[in-house]
Amino acid sequence: MAQYTLSTTLHLPYAEAVEAVRAQLAEAGFGVLTEIDLQATLKAKLDVEVLPQVILGACRPQLAHEALQVDPSIAALLPCNVVVRALDADTTIVEAFDPGAMTALAGDRAGETLRTVATDARQRLTTALAALKEN
Amino acid sequence: MAQYTLSTTLHLPYAEAVEAVRAQLAEAGFGVLTEIDLQATLKAKLDVEVLPQVILGACRPQLAHEALQVDPSIAALLPCNVVVRALDADTTIVEAFDPGAMTALAGDRAGETLRTVATDARQRLTTALAALKEN
Repeated sequence: MAQYTLSTTLHLPYAEAVEAVRAQLAEAGFGVLTEIDLQATLKAKLDVEVLPQVILGACRPQLAHEALQVDPSIAALLPCNVVVRALDADTTIVEAFDPGAMTALAGDRAGETLRTVATDARQRLTTALAALKEN
Repeated sequence: MAQYTLSTTLHLPYAEAVEAVRAQLAEAGFGVLTEIDLQATLKAKLDVEVLPQVILGACRPQLAHEALQVDPSIAALLPCNVVVRALDADTTIVEAFDPGAMTALAGDRAGETLRTVATDARQRLTTALAALKEN
């Protein structure tokens, strides 16, 4: 997995995994603001076949608001993407953009508030991924 | 502006700027797959008032597909966000996630293909921002 993501591999078919991810994100306090069905989009636009995968745009409004007050440019990194993609019929990968990479990108602009927000978001996502693994 | 964004400041009211950005993204070969009205979302969820701002999720399917074939984890960084936000009644900032930051995040995983894709996307966004400035 990439250094800029938090991920877990589930022994679940894709459709079940997507539902489980939605439930755990809600449990962790994230709303899903956007959704891109990559398989359908690439089929429609390019007529190519890829395995089922979806990008869920997760957002915890309280954290987004805190971060934006410190650095309005952070909007370019929102929402926090959580990708669910089939590996085969019984295995699905869940890969979330690591909020820690956000502070890395922000560099010197990342003050204490931004770090606290990123740590909170990261903890919530880590907990959600761990809960998925246990199910 | 942040190091991870490409940006320009327009002497246009917000609503006109949003329309101009949409037109230039289409001209540059990007579709807009997602849209988050941050002002409306933060008002609805937290009852706070922020200036008008929208996150447009821009995607050029050909580039996304090329990148995903090299590194499926790249999905966590898609689509490319283009944020339009009001600064005051007559001034609007356009700030796009810099695809160059994508290769920086990918680190050693970023091979030649990913760099070529990022350079293409970056060039298209830079051209779109420059065209906005000229209008």
